[in-house]
Amino acid sequence: MSKEIPYKIYLEEQEMPKEWYNVRADMKKKPAPLLNPGTHQPMTLEELSGVFCEELAKQELNETDAFIEIPEEIRNFYKMYRPSPLVRAYCLEKKLGTPAHIYYKFEGNNTSGSHKLNSAIAQAYYAKKQGLKGVTTETGAGQWGTALSMACSYFDLDCKVYMVKCSYEQKPFRREVMRTYGASVTPSPSMETNIGRKMNADFPGTTGSLGCAISEAVEVAVSTEGYRYVLGSVLSQVLLHQSVIGLETKAALDKYGIKADVIIGCAGGGSNLGGLIAPFIGQKLRGEADYRIIAVEPASCPSLTRGSYVYDFCDTGMVCPLAKMYTLGSSFIPSANHAGGLRYHGMSSVLSELYDQKLIEATSVEQTAVFEAAQQFARVEGILPAPESSHAIRVAIDEALKCKETGEAKNIVFGLTGTGYFDMYAYAAYSDHTMTDYIPTDEEIAASLAKAPKF
Amino acid sequence: MSKEIPYKIYLEEQEMPKEWYNVRADMKKKPAPLLNPGTHQPMTLEELSGVFCEELAKQELNETDAFIEIPEEIRNFYKMYRPSPLVRAYCLEKKLGTPAHIYYKFEGNNTSGSHKLNSAIAQAYYAKKQGLKGVTTETGAGQWGTALSMACSYFDLDCKVYMVKCSYEQKPFRREVMRTYGASVTPSPSMETNIGRKMNADFPGTTGSLGCAISEAVEVAVSTEGYRYVLGSVLSQVLLHQSVIGLETKAALDKYGIKADVIIGCAGGGSNLGGLIAPFIGQKLRGEADYRIIAVEPASCPSLTRGSYVYDFCDTGMVCPLAKMYTLGSSFIPSANHAGGLRYHGMSSVLSELYDQKLIEATSVEQTAVFEAAQQFARVEGILPAPESSHAIRVAIDEALKCKETGEAKNIVFGLTGTGYFDMYAYAAYSDHTMTDYIPTDEEIAASLAKAPKF
Repeated sequence: MSKEIPYKIYLEEQEMPKEWYNVRADMKKKPAPLLNPGTHQPMTLEELSGVFCEELAKQELNETDAFIEIPEEIRNFYKMYRPSPLVRAYCLEKKLGTPAHIYYKFEGNNTSGSHKLNSAIAQAYYAKKQGLKGVTTETGAGQWGTALSMACSYFDLDCKVYMVKCSYEQKPFRREVMRTYGASVTPSPSMETNIGRKMNADFPGTTGSLGCAISEAVEVAVSTEGYRYVLGSVLSQVLLHQSVIGLETKAALDKYGIKADVIIGCAGGGSNLGGLIAPFIGQKLRGEADYRIIAVEPASCPSLTRGSYVYDFCDTGMVCPLAKMYTLGSSFIPSANHAGGLRYHGMSSVLSELYDQKLIEATSVEQTAVFEAAQQFARVEGILPAPESSHAIRVAIDEALKCKETGEAKNIVFGLTGTGYFDMYAYAAYSDHTMTDYIPTDEEIAASLAKAPKF
Repeated sequence: MSKEIPYKIYLEEQEMPKEWYNVRADMKKKPAPLLNPGTHQPMTLEELSGVFCEELAKQELNETDAFIEIPEEIRNFYKMYRPSPLVRAYCLEKKLGTPAHIYYKFEGNNTSGSHKLNSAIAQAYYAKKQGLKGVTTETGAGQWGTALSMACSYFDLDCKVYMVKCSYEQKPFRREVMRTYGASVTPSPSMETNIGRKMNADFPGTTGSLGCAISEAVEVAVSTEGYRYVLGSVLSQVLLHQSVIGLETKAALDKYGIKADVIIGCAGGGSNLGGLIAPFIGQKLRGEADYRIIAVEPASCPSLTRGSYVYDFCDTGMVCPLAKMYTLGSSFIPSANHAGGLRYHGMSSVLSELYDQKLIEATSVEQTAVFEAAQQFARVEGILPAPESSHAIRVAIDEALKCKETGEAKNIVFGLTGTGYFDMYAYAAYSDHTMTDYIPTDEEIAASLAKAPKF
């Protein structure tokens, strides 16, 4: 193709996806099902519908439909901030002196500041459609809570967020963004729930964990008339909604006849990576094309690269279904010096299964190397990346530097999931050279994994 | 025109402006010239070139060329974040139940988070081209300093920012963004300059002011080999660069055959408003079209609506040229409870002259009303607006509500200059009902104006 590639490839409104892509439909060996924590039997639609909105429960269980229509109301909302640009990183390429072509799909161009909004709006829509009064959720660093509060505001739904206490205190701005959009934000563990009261009693002064906040949010959802629980990652429904990222990316590349060689995404619970790679892995599963796909996780929370592929608890209170996933054990808590997101102990069961089938690779990186890449990227590309996203930047730069050695003009595509405006303490630590790395020992991981359910 | 109007009107790369528009060329009565503070004679190119980059000094004095080419390097940088979208505020219209069509030009889609980058990159470019080592500047709330640090990073120029001390301490995140982009940030008044040492001696414990930070930055620029001073608003060169906002806005409206009825922008020093309205006021000056144009300023710093049109000092140290402008007096400092930007005591001489010729209107609004509009806008349109921008939102909503009464389907266009991520303390104060309003008394303004130079 001789068509000159612009800095940003935008799709026209009419080129935007009208259907999400459900990668499970093309998987011969499906991801392992969610299990009832009491009976160890696969969760039924009825059981799931007690916790989740009914339509979302259906999506969670749907392994057969490759395409699921995006309701018009959601498409209209998407139009407010989508299509997101696929950016050719000309400046970064020049700075690195690499023959590689680097592209990034930028999902930070909305107030939530991250890709999380893509699923938040879908989940809020289905809650509204079901006639619910509101939803509950947890948030750690705050990206998901921010996105959900925006989505609920749009549909006039009540939104109760349980925010890990240390983040609630250390990230007051995130909290205030959620309040501005009308959400109630409660530090977790709180005194409002049984699990919260128990945690506060058992561990006085605890600053909370994501697993505990999940348990609190679920407890409130199932015990409050007209409420359901929603989650921003890990679940297959979330990866389904996030497929809009990958579908747009592929459409934009196709528009200019570009064939990706390497696709790179950061991976915590898997929402971004699962969405970004969806249509590409679909081609791979159908034998239509091949791509190198790399999941990048923090060395401090390395579920794919150092975890075990077993059934595990999803939360501290053990009220959620069990999921088979690459996991570090539900009691694993990344070192407090770990600066940004990607802190969940497990990985989406879809991605776990794809990884187990060796359809995707995984690598882990340390945070000082991540922030080095973040700063370098910001200075040439202008965008201040979220620490989460910067994991992908690190590996994209490394791959581009390999191309410099070999002289290969590979097409490297990575997901830039969001912006780092609320992570300036971490950037300051990097600038001040006070940031440190921490890699958990094998013993730590083994001790945490030992508490996984045995069956 | 029957063409359906999308949520966001994007221009193609080739539709982007290749020239800035210099509104002074079409003004029969020109803005009053900058004067040498010693001789009271118009500043010469030579004098201006001691403070500013030579090419920028030329632009400052250029009243004859209607169009000035945007150098290719700057256009290439613009392509990284421009064209910015012109958004049809469908959701806001629906919420208000107005027949009006509301459009906003969103300039917050870059890491600086505001329109300031449009001029920052131009100024950095000319500094680099002149072979300078670096530039100095001041920043208050931090939007300009952030933008300039990005621009300098791109061109590998040193960037010294004097940041008003209270902002330096209260807005550590802004400071860290600038450091991430490689700028040095010094709280003002500092002990590094004569004026800084004098202010610290005369007013022990002072938390600084914009006027003092300007004086410090100018002092360092003129006394350091290879440095010049740059400014983010007020100057005619800045309005010239910001005309890219208005040119894109007009091109996008024209593309869909939309004729604006009312154009609204917030006004501090005038950089955004002057840029947004440039091509429209040009048509007005040439008698080709008519528009209502409204400048919105804070009731706590009302230079157009309550100031006098006289020559005044631009800085505390009185080292800068004198400018004829609507001013509250250079010693005027808005109440400390004023939350967001737009704190400069004077107004761009171009806008002052247009206002004096009654080609634009002005109004002032109180901050609680501004944050009410900001919150309402965020909840339906998704974007979290900067307090500055929200002044324009307030008046756009008021105009749309008038249309609801009259049944008129007016086209209302306003400038959404940036995002409010770094203003969450103010949003929190609004949410907590602790935000208050303050309107200066006539006596306060008169006392400050009494110190303006007499001649």
